[in-house]
Amino acid sequence: MKFFSILILSLCLSAAGYATAPDQLKYIFATEFPVIGKGFTDTQGRYDRLPARLEGKTRPPVWHLSKNCSGLALRFRTNSPVIVARWEVTGDVTMNHFAPSGIKGLDLYCLKNGKWQFVNSARPAGKVTQTVIIDHMEGSDREYMLYLPLYDGLVSLEIGVDPSATVGPPQVDSPRREKPVVFYGTSITQGGCASRAGMSYPNQLSRMLDRQTINLGFSGNGQLDLEVAEAMAEIDASCFVIDCLPNVNVAQMNEKFVRFVEIIREKHPEVPILLVETILFPHMYFDQTVFSLLHEKNATLQKIYSGLKKRGDRQLYYMPAGKLIGADNEATVDGVHLTDLGFLRMSENLYPVIRKLIK
Amino acid sequence: MKFFSILILSLCLSAAGYATAPDQLKYIFATEFPVIGKGFTDTQGRYDRLPARLEGKTRPPVWHLSKNCSGLALRFRTNSPVIVARWEVTGDVTMNHFAPSGIKGLDLYCLKNGKWQFVNSARPAGKVTQTVIIDHMEGSDREYMLYLPLYDGLVSLEIGVDPSATVGPPQVDSPRREKPVVFYGTSITQGGCASRAGMSYPNQLSRMLDRQTINLGFSGNGQLDLEVAEAMAEIDASCFVIDCLPNVNVAQMNEKFVRFVEIIREKHPEVPILLVETILFPHMYFDQTVFSLLHEKNATLQKIYSGLKKRGDRQLYYMPAGKLIGADNEATVDGVHLTDLGFLRMSENLYPVIRKLIK
Repeated sequence: MKFFSILILSLCLSAAGYATAPDQLKYIFATEFPVIGKGFTDTQGRYDRLPARLEGKTRPPVWHLSKNCSGLALRFRTNSPVIVARWEVTGDVTMNHFAPSGIKGLDLYCLKNGKWQFVNSARPAGKVTQTVIIDHMEGSDREYMLYLPLYDGLVSLEIGVDPSATVGPPQVDSPRREKPVVFYGTSITQGGCASRAGMSYPNQLSRMLDRQTINLGFSGNGQLDLEVAEAMAEIDASCFVIDCLPNVNVAQMNEKFVRFVEIIREKHPEVPILLVETILFPHMYFDQTVFSLLHEKNATLQKIYSGLKKRGDRQLYYMPAGKLIGADNEATVDGVHLTDLGFLRMSENLYPVIRKLIK
Repeated sequence: MKFFSILILSLCLSAAGYATAPDQLKYIFATEFPVIGKGFTDTQGRYDRLPARLEGKTRPPVWHLSKNCSGLALRFRTNSPVIVARWEVTGDVTMNHFAPSGIKGLDLYCLKNGKWQFVNSARPAGKVTQTVIIDHMEGSDREYMLYLPLYDGLVSLEIGVDPSATVGPPQVDSPRREKPVVFYGTSITQGGCASRAGMSYPNQLSRMLDRQTINLGFSGNGQLDLEVAEAMAEIDASCFVIDCLPNVNVAQMNEKFVRFVEIIREKHPEVPILLVETILFPHMYFDQTVFSLLHEKNATLQKIYSGLKKRGDRQLYYMPAGKLIGADNEATVDGVHLTDLGFLRMSENLYPVIRKLIK
C-alpha cells in the first residue's frame, strides 16, 4: 500500500514533466550568496539564529532550536532556465501535524514587477535531497529568494543551474536592508505548521513590508528567557514584536515579562515594542480549561501593558487577539498551530499595525 | 536532535493540559454509528469508496485508492465531556508534502447553532493511535461528525467517552440526507494536501451546502475510467462534479471525456453535471511547459463542453479556472496540491455555483 502511494504520487507528479537531468548542471555552494533574516553575525554556524556565546547560557532546548533555520533565506540572481537544490538537514525532523515540506523543505520566490512571487517549493526526500525546484523558464535574469527550513537545521546547501547560465549575488535590495522587525515567540512564531517556509507569518510579513524580519520563535520555548532579551536588544531593529503567550503561564508572565521588555527598552528608548495576545485557539470553544487559561493570560498581558504605559513607555503597543486568525475556527491544524490559512490571516491583520509602527 | 524536537513538541502541547486518562473511558466500536459520504453500500469494507464488484475490473491503483476513506465521516451523539479516538490505519502512509494529520488523522466537528464547527483533530502516532481529541467540555448532549483519513484506509475505529456518558447514533439529519453531490477527480479532489480531513474541498462543501458529498477523487488516477463512470451513474445524485483534468492528457480527454459524461447522462437525463477546468498551478507562471499544458487542457475541455451543449445537453455546466484558488499564487504547497488556504478558496468559489445547481 505504501509502495502504491509512492508510485501513485510519482505518476501524479510526472504530469509536471521535468526535463533537465540534475547531474548535468553546475552547482554553486550557498556560501557564495548572502543569507538574509539573521539577527546576529557572531553565530556558530552560518544558519544559526542565536549568537555563539549563548551556548551553555540559555536553556538547551532554546539553544538547539536556534539551529533551526526559520526566517532565514538565501538571495541570489540567475538567468538559468532551471533551478535545482541539493541540501542536507541536521535533524531530518518529522512531526505528525506538519508537512515535511514545511519542516525541512526549501521554498523559492522570485521578484516579479517589484513583488515577491511564489515559484515552487523543494520537497525533502530525507536527510539529503536533490530536486528540481523549477524548470522550463524563459531564461531571463531574475532575483530569487530561497527560504530555508522552518524546523530543521542545514548542514549544507547548493544551488544547481544550467552550465551556461550566469549566477551571482542579488543586485536588488529587497526585502530592503533597512532596520529589521524582530519577532520573539513560540512554535507558531517559528512557523508551525506552515506547508512551506514562505508561509510562516514572519516570512509573509517580510514580503508584505519589503523589510527583513528576524525570527526568534522557539517551539515550546518562548518562555521569556532574559538572556534572549539581552541578545535581542543588540539588534538595531525598527520594531520588536513579542508573541510568546502560548508558551508561558501566568506566574512566568508576572515574574519575567516586565523585565524582558525593560531589557530591550534600555537599549532602544524610542523603538516600538508590540505585545501580541495569544491567538484564541479554536478548541477553547469546547475545552473550558483552555478557554479560561487563554483569557487569563490575555488579561494578564493587558495588565502588564497598562502598567508599563503608566510608567511612561510611549512606544509600547498592544495587539488584541480579536480576529487575528479569523472567526470561522478553521485556521489551525490541531486547535493550536496555524496552517497557511491561519498564517495568511495573521499576517494580513498584523501588517497594517506594524507598517504604521516602522514608518 | 530528533529526540529534542519530540521533547519540545511534547512540552509545547502539554500547555493544552489534558486531564482524562484514556484507559478509564468506555469505548464504542464505530460500527455502532452511521457512516456518511458513501456512494455505495455494496463495498468490501465499511470504509471503502467503490463497489466490491469493481475489484479486478478497474485499474489496480484506482482500486487501492478506493480504500482510502476520503469524504467519509462518522456521525454520533454524546454528552461526554471527553472524546477519545482509537484507530488503526491500513497503510500508515507518509508523504513529503502532506501532514500526517491530513493523510491518516481524524477530524472532529460539532453541530453548534445549526452549523458544523471545528472541535479538534486527532493526530496520528503511526499505524495504531489512541489520543484525546477534546476534554473539559461542559457535558451537554451534542451532535458530532468525525471525518476519516483522506489518504489511508481504516482497519478499525473506536470512540472513547466518559463511563457515565450517554452515546448513540445522531438525532439530527445534518448534513441532510437529500441527494448527494458526487465529485470525481484527482489527488486534489481526494484532499491533497489538507492539514486535516475536514479541510478537503468536498468536505468543506458538504458543511457549506448542508448536504452529503461523495468523494471519488483518486490521487494521480482521475483518468476518466469508464467503469468508474458506470458506478457513479448508479448514485442517486443531485449533481455530478467532474474535476479530473490534472490527471489526464489531451489525448485521453479527446478519447474518453464525452463517453464518460454520456454514461452518467444516460441514467440521469436531468441531473446537473459540472465540468471543472484544471486550477492554474502557480508555478506555471515560471514553467512555460506547464503553462502551455494547462491552457491546452482547459481549451480542450471548453471544446468538449461546447460540443455536448450543441448536441442538446441542457444540464451541463462549466466552471472556469479563473480565480478558483485566488490570484496571489500562495494557495499550494508545491505548485499543484492545495493547502487549507487553497481549499477554502476553491470551496468558497464552487459553493454558489453548486448551490444554484442543486436547488
